[in-house]
Amino acid sequence: MTLVYEGKAKRVFTTEEDGVYRIEYKDEVTAGNGAKKDSMAGKGRLNNLITSKFFEKLNEEGYASHFISRLSETEQLVRKVDIIPLEVVVRNKAAGSIVKRLGLTKGQAFEVPLVEFYYKNDELNDPIITEDHVKLLNIADDEEIKALKEQALIINRILIRLMEQMNLSLIDFKIEFGKDKDGTILLADEISPDTCRIWDKATNENFDKDVYREDTGSLIDTYTAFYNKLEAL
Amino acid sequence: MTLVYEGKAKRVFTTEEDGVYRIEYKDEVTAGNGAKKDSMAGKGRLNNLITSKFFEKLNEEGYASHFISRLSETEQLVRKVDIIPLEVVVRNKAAGSIVKRLGLTKGQAFEVPLVEFYYKNDELNDPIITEDHVKLLNIADDEEIKALKEQALIINRILIRLMEQMNLSLIDFKIEFGKDKDGTILLADEISPDTCRIWDKATNENFDKDVYREDTGSLIDTYTAFYNKLEAL
Ligand SMILES: Nc1ncnc2c1ncn2[C@@H]1O[C@H](COP(=O)(O)OP(=O)(O)O)[C@@H](O)[C@H]1O
Ligand SMILES: Nc1ncnc2c1ncn2[C@@H]1O[C@H](COP(=O)(O)OP(=O)(O)O)[C@@H](O)[C@H]1O
Ligand SMILES: [Mg+2]
Ligand SMILES: [Mg+2]
Repeated sequence: MTLVYEGKAKRVFTTEEDGVYRIEYKDEVTAGNGAKKDSMAGKGRLNNLITSKFFEKLNEEGYASHFISRLSETEQLVRKVDIIPLEVVVRNKAAGSIVKRLGLTKGQAFEVPLVEFYYKNDELNDPIITEDHVKLLNIADDEEIKALKEQALIINRILIRLMEQMNLSLIDFKIEFGKDKDGTILLADEISPDTCRIWDKATNENFDKDVYREDTGSLIDTYTAFYNKLEAL
Repeated sequence: MTLVYEGKAKRVFTTEEDGVYRIEYKDEVTAGNGAKKDSMAGKGRLNNLITSKFFEKLNEEGYASHFISRLSETEQLVRKVDIIPLEVVVRNKAAGSIVKRLGLTKGQAFEVPLVEFYYKNDELNDPIITEDHVKLLNIADDEEIKALKEQALIINRILIRLMEQMNLSLIDFKIEFGKDKDGTILLADEISPDTCRIWDKATNENFDKDVYREDTGSLIDTYTAFYNKLEAL
């Protein structure tokens, strides 16, 4: 069981089974591509529990992902994939970087959900790229780009419905996809308050990492509150 | 004849004829969205002569633009359009901002010419945007986006052929389009060493504003040399 990759929030290990990885969620939190950084006891557990729950819910809806099972409070088993170096972002309302970049109003709803691709490359600071750049960089071809966008929108619809049931609004989220050994595109990585923007429907209160990014509340309390809502579903 | 708009490089005036503008080329040069700025005697004349020549050449190839006629050494008459707030960039080889943004090698040739859209908005620093952003911002619809890309590539092919005849290589260029009163999309603005990257085929020597951006030569001498080649065609 060797360490394959250590990222900002997780460690990835091989297992005895070929094609299966173990992911360990760390108690680290970062923002601004690592510019802000802290250790918080219990954070790894919460993100592992939340991500596992989300992947289970997606499975129930017939949407398969890399997720196999939750192993422990901080670990899960997943199918090994070759990560496609894209951060696929889906936005239902304007928040975060897009507000400044395009001069939008925070909270403004988009008529149709917006899908964006960011080149997953820490050295380049994950720049936003167009579909033509995706092809130019040999990251994906036309058909794969189409599949990624379609899958992102399917996931969006399922997540929106889950959030509705918790009286929450899904503002935006980031997902990563990979290819398994057959070349099939599979949702991978995590879905957690680290990678989503989630607002209370009534009060617009954040249930996501923005409390850490903007120093407006306790991350652990916020993620715990969100996990409790999700568990109650 | 009132001043409609004063930009960084040109002034736009109404004329006695409805739907016709006079554009006056200024002796100003800027780089980095105005961060670097100078006045250079003769620069307006050169860009007016070069742009007029390019638009005449495009016309000869059957490609119409806003250009009506050159009025004087520093002025031209153009059809008035509502500018579409996009800087449409066509790239044949990697140079300038894209090299750093995507980690490319300067001078690397693209298999197919790359078309990019930048949101023409000085306050936002002309951010690169995707086709979905173009639609979201209500700048253009699917059909218009398709037309803009197609026209950009037609212009690219014509300009490449002209450059070939001068033993020059067209690395990239920026164009702007507008809509006339019938809603027809028309190439507008200018095509000059301010808005193109042009390299000598043999030596890679710059015949463009990079000599000013990078302080590697005299802008006036460079533009004069380019104009002489263009005139000799
Ligand atoms: N099923 C999988 N197979 C292989 N790699 C994965 C899988 N799921 C996620 N990963 C990758 O594992 C890493 C998880 O660690 P993380 O801390 O999120 O890294 P990063 O700092 O790069 O975001 C990421 O690089 C992610 O792309
Ligand atoms: N045919 C036209 N009708 C209306 N406006 C035009 C036309 N051609 C160019 N323009 C606009 O006139 C301005 C030219 O001035 P310029 O100095 O290039 O401005 P900027 O600093 O905005 O680039 C630009 O804003 C350009 O979009
Ligand atoms: Mg990550
Ligand atoms: Mg201009």
